[in-house]
Amino acid sequence: MASLLTRRLQFSCLHRFLRSFNLNCGNVTRCASLDSALSAFRSICGEGRVSLGEAVREQHGKDESLHRCCPPDVVLFPGCVEEVSALAQVCHRHGLPIIPFGTGTGLEGGVSAVKGGVCFSLRNMDQVLDLHQEDFDVTVEPGVTRKALNSYLRDTGLWFPVDPGADASLCGMAATSASGTNAVRYGTMRENVLNLEVVLADGSVLHTAGKGRRPRKTSAGYNLTNLFVGSEGTLGIITKTTLRLYGVPEAVVSAVCSFPSIQEAVDSTVQVLQAGVPIARIEFLDDVMIDACNRFSRLSYPVMPTLFLEFHGSEQSLKEQVNTTEEITQSNRGSDFQWAQEAETRERLWKARHDAWYAALALRPGCKAYSTDVCVPLSRLPQILVETKEDLIENRLTGPIAGHVGDGNFHCLVVVDPSDPEELHRVHLFTERLARRALAMDGTCTGEHGVGLGKRALLREEMGATAIQVMQGLKDVLDPDNVMNPGKVLQPREI
Amino acid sequence: MASLLTRRLQFSCLHRFLRSFNLNCGNVTRCASLDSALSAFRSICGEGRVSLGEAVREQHGKDESLHRCCPPDVVLFPGCVEEVSALAQVCHRHGLPIIPFGTGTGLEGGVSAVKGGVCFSLRNMDQVLDLHQEDFDVTVEPGVTRKALNSYLRDTGLWFPVDPGADASLCGMAATSASGTNAVRYGTMRENVLNLEVVLADGSVLHTAGKGRRPRKTSAGYNLTNLFVGSEGTLGIITKTTLRLYGVPEAVVSAVCSFPSIQEAVDSTVQVLQAGVPIARIEFLDDVMIDACNRFSRLSYPVMPTLFLEFHGSEQSLKEQVNTTEEITQSNRGSDFQWAQEAETRERLWKARHDAWYAALALRPGCKAYSTDVCVPLSRLPQILVETKEDLIENRLTGPIAGHVGDGNFHCLVVVDPSDPEELHRVHLFTERLARRALAMDGTCTGEHGVGLGKRALLREEMGATAIQVMQGLKDVLDPDNVMNPGKVLQPREI
Repeated sequence: MASLLTRRLQFSCLHRFLRSFNLNCGNVTRCASLDSALSAFRSICGEGRVSLGEAVREQHGKDESLHRCCPPDVVLFPGCVEEVSALAQVCHRHGLPIIPFGTGTGLEGGVSAVKGGVCFSLRNMDQVLDLHQEDFDVTVEPGVTRKALNSYLRDTGLWFPVDPGADASLCGMAATSASGTNAVRYGTMRENVLNLEVVLADGSVLHTAGKGRRPRKTSAGYNLTNLFVGSEGTLGIITKTTLRLYGVPEAVVSAVCSFPSIQEAVDSTVQVLQAGVPIARIEFLDDVMIDACNRFSRLSYPVMPTLFLEFHGSEQSLKEQVNTTEEITQSNRGSDFQWAQEAETRERLWKARHDAWYAALALRPGCKAYSTDVCVPLSRLPQILVETKEDLIENRLTGPIAGHVGDGNFHCLVVVDPSDPEELHRVHLFTERLARRALAMDGTCTGEHGVGLGKRALLREEMGATAIQVMQGLKDVLDPDNVMNPGKVLQPREI
Repeated sequence: MASLLTRRLQFSCLHRFLRSFNLNCGNVTRCASLDSALSAFRSICGEGRVSLGEAVREQHGKDESLHRCCPPDVVLFPGCVEEVSALAQVCHRHGLPIIPFGTGTGLEGGVSAVKGGVCFSLRNMDQVLDLHQEDFDVTVEPGVTRKALNSYLRDTGLWFPVDPGADASLCGMAATSASGTNAVRYGTMRENVLNLEVVLADGSVLHTAGKGRRPRKTSAGYNLTNLFVGSEGTLGIITKTTLRLYGVPEAVVSAVCSFPSIQEAVDSTVQVLQAGVPIARIEFLDDVMIDACNRFSRLSYPVMPTLFLEFHGSEQSLKEQVNTTEEITQSNRGSDFQWAQEAETRERLWKARHDAWYAALALRPGCKAYSTDVCVPLSRLPQILVETKEDLIENRLTGPIAGHVGDGNFHCLVVVDPSDPEELHRVHLFTERLARRALAMDGTCTGEHGVGLGKRALLREEMGATAIQVMQGLKDVLDPDNVMNPGKVLQPREI
């Protein structure tokens, strides 16, 4: 069985190789060495942790995006950094692509094995390693998800706030520079990663801030930590991350407020921030989105532009935060707050927000969703939201909008029939127009999902030729053979 | 006159070249081309903005540290990015080192022209370019200092909080990853720079987040912004920085509290942070430091371990922050708070804190000061502070201690007679022991001053060989000829 699969693997590798290079030399030696690579993998992490099964490979070739599944040739399940390093050395010797895999909850095709190769599934490395309560930091392995970490922290009075919705792995969140609903208060992964352990393309092990170091700030040399945060597996495999933690707030309260117009919802957001209210979450849902959430989560909010808000603090400070915010929303013709004070009610509210994806899908059963991810300066939000809604209507697309408006970041959850090429094309054109609209407003095509496969051309437009050359130069230094998650972030060079 | 200086310049260049390479070939061509470089400089920015004067060169070869003055061969005063780019191209063609210069307030010899070359003084590029009040961001040229920006913002209700004490240029602060007294609340330059314009070694102009872009968050490709923040001029010349701004707090109050021991002062700090008090400043001064400040600033605080505190917020929230903090300090045997509520009294208090450097110097008139800069996890602070004070006493050194304890960062302001080589040697050994003590406690040798000249060997110990190799690789990509502020951050390679 294994040898049959090995032959298939060799054939698939050969086929891809011929196709990508359009010539037929050199590849035989490379593919012939796969047998020896497989045998080396097995001797490093054991037979049971090297999978050639089709179902396993399929499962690891796809994330939650619309990007097509490109299964890797083999999936490895290493158990420790030493194994990851040894396995990477084998890949390096054999020139095999490496694709790191956390939970597969990405949204830009980051785990797609577009050039085949070896998927490193890190789910077995799932230990919380070092918790320093007094220092507000913790180190975790890549199999630890954000929910698992917060469960682990339950009795410590501490928590890790970055929350992209999905129960993603924390190292995966570092790799994609994730953020989510409460970045407005606690920052993104960029601000919350203190140190990373990374296995580089040649198998060497890098500690981006020095081994075991965890000062809250540093000026020691180039900031390697933030070079790897957001590098989407293209510079190395993150095998440990040291994170900042926060004290669990004494009190939490959530509220919902509806507005007659988008402008008034966004104006409220800007004014709340200007007033210095340390708001923990301020989420915008447009009328289409709130309608979808009402249906999916059995809620009954008015079908109008809406803000979901959350306040963290002491009882006393909550009162003041809420008063200031309510004054501002009312001066912008917002409704009275609908409260969610009990943990259960709050959880229901935020579950509804996090279920927006499924609520959008439920609008058109059998369809798939693609989430756009632009981010613009706050003052440009009303204009881009209005123009985007007009664009959706003009182009007969279903695309409820939800956004982290405190950061200027919003998502259009475009629901599309994947079997309809014409509609897919319309979606594609829409997402490009939306991204260019954001670029024209000093914004970015991706606030938190990353570039992956889908935004490589847009990245070039956004950054300009010099920045892309610099990025390519950094990639070449760290991964001269282009084996680390090839084809992501940067476009393949012309040959 | 000019030709005489040019000849001297050629000689100095020749001499250095021979000394550093210990051979006598190749340099004649290089130095012979200086005349043509000078003429190109003059044609780009005009005769008056190319200075060969000894006093000007001396002034630009030194910062506020103990590192010896290494004057550049020539100082340029460009007026715009186009001139910086054209001048850099000339340097590139002639292989001349480039040393960017802001205000010269650095503390690690960053502007010292150790290989001679061309100083780019950026003081004439002093415009605040784009203020977006609703978006809480501003773009400034490199001649704008933090005080100048805050004056400019006076009537807008906004301010830029990062405050290293000195009135440094904001681009210089980005270059050294500066922070200071209120990083505990507002973060360091790493968290507050949104975009940089950088002239690279070959004169090309890079916008680290894309030209004119200013989203509050982004996942668009590698984080080039934070690669240049803290790069100390060794990767490029920062010619613009886009910064986050904050709303001016409605109310501000400062207080001073004395403690029977260092442990109790630090325990209070940890507990205040654990309680989630959004404290704006929490500064530690040891007994020696408070004594020096009392004398220098005519104050009369008890000569004991002391915290200087500052709270920002609404009137209501201040009350609560102060109550919580006072409960904590009293449970740790802290004194009653001595208040500074009026702007004038507060300014006097923080001026005394910022004058700590001069207060330390005044302890031994005629001496110079060197500031150490270690940063450790909070829980390790009491031990490292106690051991460091013992070390100072054992080694007969004067070194008052002041620290940003909310971040685990403290400075020992060692006052030394620069004409006494034996004492200088003792200081050197002390600073190395202190740095290694911090490294042994998971900390860093530099929390905010940078590596510059003095900490290159310690950086290697702190980061490990792989990280240094990666840093060197990044340097080689961006500056293949090693002309950007050579000799800083990374040690010269063996030839």
